[in-house]
Amino acid sequence: MTEFTVDTTARCQLVKITHDVQSAVTGAGLKDGLCIVFVPHTTAGITINENADPDVVFDIRSAFEKICPWDAGYRHGEGNAAAHVKASMTGSSVSIIVEDGRLRLGTWQGIFFCEFDGPRSRRVWVKTLPA
Amino acid sequence: MTEFTVDTTARCQLVKITHDVQSAVTGAGLKDGLCIVFVPHTTAGITINENADPDVVFDIRSAFEKICPWDAGYRHGEGNAAAHVKASMTGSSVSIIVEDGRLRLGTWQGIFFCEFDGPRSRRVWVKTLPA
Amino acid sequence: MTEFTVDTTARCQLVKITHDVQSAVTGAGLKDGLCIVFVPHTTAGITINENADPDVVFDIRSAFEKICPWDAGYRHGEGNAAAHVKASMTGSSVSIIVEDGRLRLGTWQGIFFCEFDGPRSRRVWVKTLPA
Repeated sequence: MTEFTVDTTARCQLVKITHDVQSAVTGAGLKDGLCIVFVPHTTAGITINENADPDVVFDIRSAFEKICPWDAGYRHGEGNAAAHVKASMTGSSVSIIVEDGRLRLGTWQGIFFCEFDGPRSRRVWVKTLPA
Repeated sequence: MTEFTVDTTARCQLVKITHDVQSAVTGAGLKDGLCIVFVPHTTAGITINENADPDVVFDIRSAFEKICPWDAGYRHGEGNAAAHVKASMTGSSVSIIVEDGRLRLGTWQGIFFCEFDGPRSRRVWVKTLPA
Repeated sequence: MTEFTVDTTARCQLVKITHDVQSAVTGAGLKDGLCIVFVPHTTAGITINENADPDVVFDIRSAFEKICPWDAGYRHGEGNAAAHVKASMTGSSVSIIVEDGRLRLGTWQGIFFCEFDGPRSRRVWVKTLPA
């Protein structure tokens, strides 16, 4: 397993980590198989989406805030319940096929760490499995 | 890795692909392990849900449209930001256990390609991993 | 593949299953690799979230009910369409890294079975894959 860190700078932020994940796969020496990217936090998530136009990421962030607003009369005393809900909406991991040592992603796809309660220093775990 | 195509016929459509995925697993010769079904697009997703009553798929489509409406003042210039948000809500892949060469699904479960910005010709990737 | 059951006691309930999953991994003898936890139902899901403060689980349940209300004019005749939508929002499986025979989870993470149409007796499947 490989770990890398993501230092976020805002409460809600999508940070592109495609290159970090590729580096972890290259470092692990996997040629053919599967790569699991896992976020060991409960107020952050991970997703795959468009890596070209930054407005897409802006719209995703805004839409998630509308769907699950920060202030909505939650019980959880720490005040970050919305971040927990968003973590369960995106999920804690993504799975990506690896062939010829490269992540197989679609033309417009990038991997994004989803910060929902930043800024914080976060960790990401990458595990490789042979086919 | 096996690829097959899905030709969608509406903007928002859930297309059952269970048989295509089973064919890919059979073609790969996997008897025991895991099958990853990955969608290399950023305005489409994938989900597992009821394959019996088509009203379920209708209700999922309608609920997703209410949660994340097509027109809601997004920034992304292409006009399909809602499709990107929905893609992150469903996710880009599903994982299915394979035993005796067969996908292990619950009685009522089917695998659905989720088109959120059709109609288009789409691709689906299937990768198998031995246990 | 290992199966265990979860008997839910309410319509909507998040049940912690971390220990059941660890037992399945230990029983399978996996030391290093990946564990897939799969829910073979279409009105239930699975998620990873905070296992410390039960208010988090309460807030997730409430937020999901606001996002996708039980009564909202659905077509599906069984009356549980909202449960199907929530199943697609959380997803049918989670993937967890295994090292030294232990599930690798973050400090605050637990695995939760998500009942959206209970009470019912439910099944959970666990499959292990070597690295």
